[in-house]
Amino acid sequence: MAKELTTRVENYSQWYNDLVIKAELADNSAVRGCMVIRPNGYAIWEKMQAQLDKMFKETGHVNAYFPLFIPKSFFSREASHVEGFAKECAVVTHYRLKNSPDGKGVVVDPEAKLEEEYIVRPTSETIIWDTYRTWIQSYRDLPILVNQWANVVRWEMRTRLFLRTAEFLWQEGHTAHATREEAITETEKILDVYADFAEKWMAIPVLKGLKSPNERFAGAVETYCIEALMQDGKALQAGTSHFLGQNFAKAFDVQFLNKENQLEYVWATSWGVSTRLMGALIMSHSDDHGLVIPPKLAPTQVVIVPIYKTDDQLKQISEKVVEIMAALRSKGITVKYDDRDTFKPGWKFNEHEFKGIPVRIAIGPRDLENGTVEVARRDTLEKSVYQITDLETKIEHLLESIQQNLYQKALAFREENTFKADTWDEFKRILDTTGGFISAHWDGTPETEQKIKDETKATIRVIPLNNKQEEGKCIYTGNPSKQRVIFARAY
Amino acid sequence: MAKELTTRVENYSQWYNDLVIKAELADNSAVRGCMVIRPNGYAIWEKMQAQLDKMFKETGHVNAYFPLFIPKSFFSREASHVEGFAKECAVVTHYRLKNSPDGKGVVVDPEAKLEEEYIVRPTSETIIWDTYRTWIQSYRDLPILVNQWANVVRWEMRTRLFLRTAEFLWQEGHTAHATREEAITETEKILDVYADFAEKWMAIPVLKGLKSPNERFAGAVETYCIEALMQDGKALQAGTSHFLGQNFAKAFDVQFLNKENQLEYVWATSWGVSTRLMGALIMSHSDDHGLVIPPKLAPTQVVIVPIYKTDDQLKQISEKVVEIMAALRSKGITVKYDDRDTFKPGWKFNEHEFKGIPVRIAIGPRDLENGTVEVARRDTLEKSVYQITDLETKIEHLLESIQQNLYQKALAFREENTFKADTWDEFKRILDTTGGFISAHWDGTPETEQKIKDETKATIRVIPLNNKQEEGKCIYTGNPSKQRVIFARAY
Repeated sequence: MAKELTTRVENYSQWYNDLVIKAELADNSAVRGCMVIRPNGYAIWEKMQAQLDKMFKETGHVNAYFPLFIPKSFFSREASHVEGFAKECAVVTHYRLKNSPDGKGVVVDPEAKLEEEYIVRPTSETIIWDTYRTWIQSYRDLPILVNQWANVVRWEMRTRLFLRTAEFLWQEGHTAHATREEAITETEKILDVYADFAEKWMAIPVLKGLKSPNERFAGAVETYCIEALMQDGKALQAGTSHFLGQNFAKAFDVQFLNKENQLEYVWATSWGVSTRLMGALIMSHSDDHGLVIPPKLAPTQVVIVPIYKTDDQLKQISEKVVEIMAALRSKGITVKYDDRDTFKPGWKFNEHEFKGIPVRIAIGPRDLENGTVEVARRDTLEKSVYQITDLETKIEHLLESIQQNLYQKALAFREENTFKADTWDEFKRILDTTGGFISAHWDGTPETEQKIKDETKATIRVIPLNNKQEEGKCIYTGNPSKQRVIFARAY
Repeated sequence: MAKELTTRVENYSQWYNDLVIKAELADNSAVRGCMVIRPNGYAIWEKMQAQLDKMFKETGHVNAYFPLFIPKSFFSREASHVEGFAKECAVVTHYRLKNSPDGKGVVVDPEAKLEEEYIVRPTSETIIWDTYRTWIQSYRDLPILVNQWANVVRWEMRTRLFLRTAEFLWQEGHTAHATREEAITETEKILDVYADFAEKWMAIPVLKGLKSPNERFAGAVETYCIEALMQDGKALQAGTSHFLGQNFAKAFDVQFLNKENQLEYVWATSWGVSTRLMGALIMSHSDDHGLVIPPKLAPTQVVIVPIYKTDDQLKQISEKVVEIMAALRSKGITVKYDDRDTFKPGWKFNEHEFKGIPVRIAIGPRDLENGTVEVARRDTLEKSVYQITDLETKIEHLLESIQQNLYQKALAFREENTFKADTWDEFKRILDTTGGFISAHWDGTPETEQKIKDETKATIRVIPLNNKQEEGKCIYTGNPSKQRVIFARAY
């Protein structure tokens, strides 16, 4: 296997696209902006889903499912929501096709026009709060802690596999609370879940904080986010958790009788991560040799390749491999034996490297004699000879060490690429050279943020939680500022 | 909790609908024919998914994800498929809304009309085979054993929660093979997986067999199915597995180079089960007291209710319950402690009965003294006093016994309600009295099947596998027949 892969330095964007397609993670489809997630990619997404789902359940959430379609009028109920979401979307106007008059195909039946059009959900606040009205009467019905795994559609003009697609898969949590405080606590709890998942499972360090008003979710009072830095110095928003106040409860008239027997509007949150995380994962760790997947999310953690010339050698090796696999599996390690006779070991090495399997074990006749195996780790590409005794414990530790190393490497990269800028020239110079996170003063107005964006394409990615307060001058207007915020160009 | 539930004898259909809504399994939504699956219902669906997914993976399948939308022209490629599927469906014609001139809402932007309309997938053969063309070049690329968990939309006119909804959740397997034999083996393997799942997990006995041409999947060469009998004597198709021949490969030009280096069209299968299984589960086992859920699919298998008057009693009981729960969990049993102080035990008993928790344990001060608990099983409503010693093993056996009992009960019901009919009068009389499966001779023509359907609403549900061959006369035409087939009215 000799996959041609554009290098990151040559063309980062092309490298990413090549990698996604050649590692068979996803494909473009016949439908504009919609991707096919191939088995290799979906297996990683399944591992992400399983872990996130576990974390949601451990924090008291349950899953449910709401309709794919939303009546058009629902979007007009919450003023800022409609501005943000109801514009670029897929609209269902008819419910029947009929044979075309020329007999060569089918056409839309004009008589089957819907009275009110349906929108394919771009996000489900409206349909869910329309439902919650019937679920909530009293404080005893609260809180509602519901999550949904679903597909959503946003008619994006420029799409990129995983990062921005017209249809994508995600989870969206929608919770309902009796008090403002409880809703804010929930919003922050989920932010912590997302950050933990990104750091401990995806091995991606993230900044936690608030969005500026310009970047806030349409309909939210406050948007919390986790923000990661990719290898090309661009930021990627990896998850958001919104405190929605009583906006949707008011729009859909969801009130409850509190303990004092008075009617109050319900407090809300919503939060989500999507298949975009696949893009973040790929871009954070992979290199010019192909994919690098953190062991905790790798569908196959270890691959074993036999090195042999004769059938007899293969037979002896395979017997030993059966033992090794059983030992590894007893530690919960997922392992595959690649004994295909249609490919040479070197070809297999390249393929497994390209597809990002964290650890490769090679075993030949001399290894059998010596009681050893050759172990290659994908992150550093280092090879070592291991004594076969207690191999499962050694591999278990190696996998942990790879997981840690990937995180530390990404953290070091972020630290090297986080800069303070105190002048506008410096700010622009950083953006045009290294990129990265730029910590700079901002006068706190949406107008200034917009002007900075218009001139440089950089936006405020995050106002860090517990941000240090310090006097300063806005990088753009020179007006007084109380704190630095984090700017970057972003995906 | 005193839920009003229509009895089955009174009005079976109303009983079902009441139960689904009052047990909070699903709700109707603001979107025509689309349901909301509530957390109680979704938790059961998740258990079904997890087990099916495991069985698919154990038989070598992997998951992937294909686009929600299908270009309209794709449906015209396979002649019988378009007849069956492209008619009643949701059609996306536009991709943008804009503010309405009166400023009061949003309207479809006429300038954002799609050149070719998209259909919301009613099933994904077309988009998947369009993709497989790029994945398959040689016999080395085969077989492809892919499954997808997804939502689909069919614009049904009359909808019923779970049984027939415009949007539903399902899995659809789509496999590609080098030979006809291999594809047929796959089709039959999946039929066995479905039957095993229905019988061992859902505790529903099923007939395995083939569909008659009239009931075949649009585009299939042969449709295999599992067919179950509901308590009202109507049949329910619980899963289908289709041998598609080379129909879709030809429609989408998917050829491969075989070992002899010749181009051949690829052989295909597709197979699916859906949230309809929820309907089957509910209708098979539940009674006039509410839901009955087989232990293997019950999200909560055991609930413990404390019986107390004083806080001190509650404290002592709760200490014992903590021990019991740990012991039960060590056996993999899911257990909840219902110590809410806002409801009385009797109310709780009714609620857990209504929601179908398989086993209820009550424990009071006298039980503490005697080292006993009261155990109630949901299937028979019997109560017994159990010594607390080794309770976990006893409960484990009880759950197994409930699972078995539900299956045996459903099997006995089916046997009692399977009839042979040798005359047309007998056939009609059975349909109009008990209903059930009717084993009768049929002359093998689609015309006769259609006439029988028109006159009685009964259809051929299944031609059993390894069906006994016997000479006879068609129940309707009197023409010669070689075998009996199974008729019923169906959901």
